[in-house]
Amino acid sequence: MKKNFKLKIRYDGSRYQGWEHQVGVDLTIQGKLESVLAKMTDSDISAIKIIASGRTDAGVHAIGQIANVHLDTDLDEDYVKEYLNRYLPDDISIDECKLASDRFHARYNAVGKTYRYTFYYGDKKPVFDRKYVTVIDKDVDIDAMIKASKYLVGEHDYKSFCANPRMKKSTVRIVDKIDIKRNGPYIHLYFHGTGFLQNMVRILAGTLLEVGFHKMTPIRVKEIMDARDRKLAGPTAPAMGLCLMEVDY
Amino acid sequence: MKKNFKLKIRYDGSRYQGWEHQVGVDLTIQGKLESVLAKMTDSDISAIKIIASGRTDAGVHAIGQIANVHLDTDLDEDYVKEYLNRYLPDDISIDECKLASDRFHARYNAVGKTYRYTFYYGDKKPVFDRKYVTVIDKDVDIDAMIKASKYLVGEHDYKSFCANPRMKKSTVRIVDKIDIKRNGPYIHLYFHGTGFLQNMVRILAGTLLEVGFHKMTPIRVKEIMDARDRKLAGPTAPAMGLCLMEVDY
Repeated sequence: MKKNFKLKIRYDGSRYQGWEHQVGVDLTIQGKLESVLAKMTDSDISAIKIIASGRTDAGVHAIGQIANVHLDTDLDEDYVKEYLNRYLPDDISIDECKLASDRFHARYNAVGKTYRYTFYYGDKKPVFDRKYVTVIDKDVDIDAMIKASKYLVGEHDYKSFCANPRMKKSTVRIVDKIDIKRNGPYIHLYFHGTGFLQNMVRILAGTLLEVGFHKMTPIRVKEIMDARDRKLAGPTAPAMGLCLMEVDY
Repeated sequence: MKKNFKLKIRYDGSRYQGWEHQVGVDLTIQGKLESVLAKMTDSDISAIKIIASGRTDAGVHAIGQIANVHLDTDLDEDYVKEYLNRYLPDDISIDECKLASDRFHARYNAVGKTYRYTFYYGDKKPVFDRKYVTVIDKDVDIDAMIKASKYLVGEHDYKSFCANPRMKKSTVRIVDKIDIKRNGPYIHLYFHGTGFLQNMVRILAGTLLEVGFHKMTPIRVKEIMDARDRKLAGPTAPAMGLCLMEVDY
């Protein structure tokens, strides 16, 4: 029986070379999932194709990644969830497994995404969550970062914040909301938008950090955006601080 | 100048073979600390001897381990703290560094310790803190565990809860307090006592878990204690769920 399973997936991306299965690359989230699904359905791995809302880069984490997979099986959702959780490694969890309509496509149907970027500034090293934060060695001016973030919200051409300089398609995106909050030593940056360009969240985080460090004025961020030139923006913040929180459909 | 430094240390014990430096063992917390201290003071590593409040086993974590080390140096506490944090790996942090009196001895002067043992029972896998909890696959009866824990508090002979059957010295200890609390999917067991025998906290946790699973009645725990026989107690709970929280002086 043909079924389309929708999965909500949480993972610690630390030891993975990203979501996407690539030839010659051993350790990917997609590769792990497909190999367990192949085993479960007794099929060849080449027959299993799991589709995520989007690829996450090497070292990026997820709390609410969504994926779908078409399987020819009589197994039900609960069985699939339990089987996957049993055979997947400790750092990948299937938090939900539901049947979706045949036409549901995790990537094409996604209408919004929330990412969180976390910087850590404290007098103690983040021993127990060191793989989920980016440590910074001086404090930031949150108000300046918030001010700068206002210029980044809306429908804009984010070419300056795109890692791919030869991007053929439109680099216009909508970012609905950027929330910047301090929680003790953690500085969380939440980005909600309809879609993001390659490394866009990490480049935005790296640029806002420059503002937080007073290396750049808030208004400078608007000038950078208008210039459509990646070289003007801040550095790409490290992958480990980034987490895909939620996908909207 | 001879100085005695008192350190408060936090570590993720996951990849270490315990606190204590042993011949032929590469990765110990003590070994890491002594090698950085030797480098800092330009001394031979054999000349550095750091003393902890107690050894922690392989895989056990600490939030408030206390240690002291005598160094012949002009360097001050802040410098030592900063140097150690810079050169120690990410999974070991020096949270405090203070000068202590010459006679301060982290082990002999310790008068109490708090350990926390954490079980995890939830419908989602603990992806991000999987190395700091022991996952259990059914729920526990917390009230039964609390009831059983009452028999374990006081001054008792804990021989039944000691991993070393040939223990020559007294196996009498004082456990002042055992707190058992549920916090969402986490079940925390806090043990405060004047001192603990080898693996004692982990055997107590393993025994209380049997009570929580109704494999054992609460009063059975008292009978086991009175019998002074390790074979009657529950299994030793895994190291990863254990954390040394605090040491009193």
